[in-house]
Amino acid sequence: MTLVRPQVARMSGYVPGEQPQEAGWTKLNTNENPYPASPAVAEAIARAAQRLAIYPDPLGRKFSQAAAEVLGVEPDCILPANGSDEVLTILMRTFVDAGETIAFPYPSYILYETLAEIQGANSIRLPLRPDWSWDVDAVRRHTEGCKIVFVPNPNSPSGNLWDDETLLRLLPKDGILVIDEAYRDFADRPRSFDLLRSEAGGRIVFTRTFSKSYSLAGLRLGFAVARPDLISEMRKVKDSYNCDTLSLAAGEAAIRDQEWMRANVDKIRVTRKRLDDTLRACGFETVTSQANFVWCRHPSGNHQQIYEGLKSRKVLVRLMKFPGAFAGCDQGHFTGLRITVGTDAETDRFLEELEATLALMT
Amino acid sequence: MTLVRPQVARMSGYVPGEQPQEAGWTKLNTNENPYPASPAVAEAIARAAQRLAIYPDPLGRKFSQAAAEVLGVEPDCILPANGSDEVLTILMRTFVDAGETIAFPYPSYILYETLAEIQGANSIRLPLRPDWSWDVDAVRRHTEGCKIVFVPNPNSPSGNLWDDETLLRLLPKDGILVIDEAYRDFADRPRSFDLLRSEAGGRIVFTRTFSKSYSLAGLRLGFAVARPDLISEMRKVKDSYNCDTLSLAAGEAAIRDQEWMRANVDKIRVTRKRLDDTLRACGFETVTSQANFVWCRHPSGNHQQIYEGLKSRKVLVRLMKFPGAFAGCDQGHFTGLRITVGTDAETDRFLEELEATLALMT
Repeated sequence: MTLVRPQVARMSGYVPGEQPQEAGWTKLNTNENPYPASPAVAEAIARAAQRLAIYPDPLGRKFSQAAAEVLGVEPDCILPANGSDEVLTILMRTFVDAGETIAFPYPSYILYETLAEIQGANSIRLPLRPDWSWDVDAVRRHTEGCKIVFVPNPNSPSGNLWDDETLLRLLPKDGILVIDEAYRDFADRPRSFDLLRSEAGGRIVFTRTFSKSYSLAGLRLGFAVARPDLISEMRKVKDSYNCDTLSLAAGEAAIRDQEWMRANVDKIRVTRKRLDDTLRACGFETVTSQANFVWCRHPSGNHQQIYEGLKSRKVLVRLMKFPGAFAGCDQGHFTGLRITVGTDAETDRFLEELEATLALMT
Repeated sequence: MTLVRPQVARMSGYVPGEQPQEAGWTKLNTNENPYPASPAVAEAIARAAQRLAIYPDPLGRKFSQAAAEVLGVEPDCILPANGSDEVLTILMRTFVDAGETIAFPYPSYILYETLAEIQGANSIRLPLRPDWSWDVDAVRRHTEGCKIVFVPNPNSPSGNLWDDETLLRLLPKDGILVIDEAYRDFADRPRSFDLLRSEAGGRIVFTRTFSKSYSLAGLRLGFAVARPDLISEMRKVKDSYNCDTLSLAAGEAAIRDQEWMRANVDKIRVTRKRLDDTLRACGFETVTSQANFVWCRHPSGNHQQIYEGLKSRKVLVRLMKFPGAFAGCDQGHFTGLRITVGTDAETDRFLEELEATLALMT
């Protein structure tokens, strides 16, 4: 169709992730939190539902104030958005022109590539080593000229965490380093935002989400953390009222209840260890995770079969394929399973069904 | 700053509309509905708040089903979005490349121009006649080569409604006609979507919002109505989870309660007539409105002074300036006041404070 922009026309249609809305599933495929959000959230939503006839605060100032207090930055360092996916879209539209280049590690979150495609920008996949570490010297040749280097940290699907020193070496010369911290609350060490005060800090943007550690994937709320001069440029590009009254109120309540979030995260970290140990005992190779999921590969390579066996038993995990990753692996199609850390009961159910599935394969 | 795209860097920062969040104001500046949303909305929100830990349906299918039933179209003709502003952003990113051109009537909704600027596209203001009618023959020279012609109908700030025949003559040869129907529910005649089944229907997109007639400006929910082939292209560009669980559930409840919406709209239409009559009696020129606001101009031309007088009395209306509109008017700066139709009590308060303000001026 000639009506549509060529770069959109040649994109394949969006294939929605599996989000069964009915009950009965053990859903370990999209890294949702198995524990409910702070009770303060439902209260905040009920109160905010009384003032839906009027527009929200276009700048989400009360939310930004709360987030800033918790993170130890100034409120004008915060840009709330309709999920951290919208932060990524805003970043692309603020900093990257058609024909310019972005880069991101590979394998990682593939949305960066889709967003670059929509923007008419080029994207470079920066190959990781098979142990998920960077060959920084090799990679820097590609990152130096980029407008944005995106790094999810912890990375998905692997769950490993890179240190700031490594990431800073990926900062492009005249571009931005985006550290996508969707899963950062699940890591052992907390993040300090002092990095923003360093010399490099003027070209770093952090992104955060309420979908994972705060148990609010249905709310669509995320935010950027960066120096005010970057935030004010990003603000020009966002829709005027990009965040609604309910999510701003809910997010404010959620971020002020750190104790609740930390308690859920701590439970998940304990279960994560047990999940990882048991997967290894079942013969899987795993990566030690700092996120709320575990990446694993079975020596049989039958990941499709394991995924389908589990699905037939109403257990959803994420089968992932990364064409061309780690040259030589799986005839050029690196595959594996990403298992979200659920409750202990969900994890038991998964492990049981996994055992039954593996038994049928041998 | 060289980091930022040049077209973003030269944009002036977004100036948020006046959205006082505290009580005490008579707020007639941003066309919110003075009556509350259907009680079914709060119930739907309370239920949906129980399932926020998981992601929403990325396609919002239950909402689309409800909207389709009410509008008499197929569900795959509906694309829900984060406010109809997001529909406009999606349209721009789906159909308009950098260097291509969009057009819109002038004076009207200035966001079209901002979105074109972000996209690196050109925009043409199509001048209206002083009575807000089109000189279609003059204008068609400019619209034929456009990728999108945007027409708010009813128009803002004037509130007048153009007939479909006129609008169809603005359809570009290889582009899209977007009929932005944010205010359409306030018009005397209902819209039939049969137009989508006509030959031209493959290049028409309607946009709708819950912010006005459904009293849900705080919710951020709008949608596009178009043929499925256009919707599926637009779907590629939207964020995967662009609508949250709460707004999809609330929107579904709101659109299913047509009786409630119609009752509020009918009250507003009665008050609109009284507001218009009284403004004329006070010496204002008005435009007969088919929306939930009335555009008026005072022969003194002192619109800034009237606006400020009202604001000092905690009555907010919208002072609007359209540089270059209607050549010769106001030394090149066409100005006026756009008054949202409030409750009868709010309208009385506005008229009282207006009288007091005018009395001080003479």
